[in-house]
Amino acid sequence: MNLDDLRQRLREFADARDWHQYHTPKNLVMALSGEVGELNALFQWLTPEESDEWQDNPELAADVRDEVADIAIYLIRLADVLGVDILEVAKAKIDRNELRFPPSR
Amino acid sequence: MNLDDLRQRLREFADARDWHQYHTPKNLVMALSGEVGELNALFQWLTPEESDEWQDNPELAADVRDEVADIAIYLIRLADVLGVDILEVAKAKIDRNELRFPPSR
Amino acid sequence: MNLDDLRQRLREFADARDWHQYHTPKNLVMALSGEVGELNALFQWLTPEESDEWQDNPELAADVRDEVADIAIYLIRLADVLGVDILEVAKAKIDRNELRFPPSR
Amino acid sequence: MNLDDLRQRLREFADARDWHQYHTPKNLVMALSGEVGELNALFQWLTPEESDEWQDNPELAADVRDEVADIAIYLIRLADVLGVDILEVAKAKIDRNELRFPPSR
Repeated sequence: MNLDDLRQRLREFADARDWHQYHTPKNLVMALSGEVGELNALFQWLTPEESDEWQDNPELAADVRDEVADIAIYLIRLADVLGVDILEVAKAKIDRNELRFPPSR
Repeated sequence: MNLDDLRQRLREFADARDWHQYHTPKNLVMALSGEVGELNALFQWLTPEESDEWQDNPELAADVRDEVADIAIYLIRLADVLGVDILEVAKAKIDRNELRFPPSR
Repeated sequence: MNLDDLRQRLREFADARDWHQYHTPKNLVMALSGEVGELNALFQWLTPEESDEWQDNPELAADVRDEVADIAIYLIRLADVLGVDILEVAKAKIDRNELRFPPSR
Repeated sequence: MNLDDLRQRLREFADARDWHQYHTPKNLVMALSGEVGELNALFQWLTPEESDEWQDNPELAADVRDEVADIAIYLIRLADVLGVDILEVAKAKIDRNELRFPPSR
């Protein structure tokens, strides 16, 4: 399953539930914000070093995977509704970043 | 260029700039939050209907594409640092959502 | 009880629990983000008009009040840790905004 | 100037600019999210220890004050539109938290 398959599956998921009416760009940005907020909550009291060892705590690990999934789902859904190709815009941005931030070595 | 290629390119980008020290899960979650905040700012005063017509405003359209790119970049980078396969966890979550939210028709 | 009283009470609350070690600016910003994310989740699928009528739904109303409280608590705590006077910086910002955005009438 | 004065001044500010139409709860939550995102961006690459020394960098210090002001402004404005008394709900929440988290000593 690649990104396109996921995008298609999420579109059909929304179709089957009549959720297109809710999936405006504005609403999906808020939904994305909500999920990113949940990910913040998982890491807020950890030091950066502790955050590197998130997998040592099985409950935290399950929650982190779950939030990464939710964020990915809303980002893919948002990009589909916007008609934006995630891979294309991300690649173009990295190309620009290569010029903005020359390698240090 | 697929998701794996992007992930690899972002890893090399961080390598070449000695940025791995900054790319802890905790820090990348904050960076992701910052970019999602910028996307919020683009849509905050629009009605949901106006948000559907974001492409009519060329400046807004460029900014939206740029933010989607930044969010994708930090999400892909975060997932790489975490060792989480975005497509796999997203697929598993959709499978669970299919059971949690039966189709209305 | 005014803002200063709340600030003092939150400081004593953290003292009594040995939480000062967790209450760095960085961590409190993440905690604030988490709570704002929860508030997003409450309003994400509502139209702006429906969001105006949040009090009609008692469960939503209780959740909204709870999130406003949590956001206020982390903002007051963060400002205390930063040594920033919320009322002073907000007043100064409104003064600047008066000049940036002249009244339309 | 206390919290009530700020609230009143922000209400008049919105009145004078015909901004009430934009200041729905939903929109103000997004505006708040945008400002919290900016605060995240200021602290994202700092260690918690470095975040404690934010005042040593004058440019960062000015930006942090500015973001705290913006977040306070949108929170006060949101609470006013919602008809929620920030001090009252925060006090009630701290009362509940005293019971949920008994002091460690």
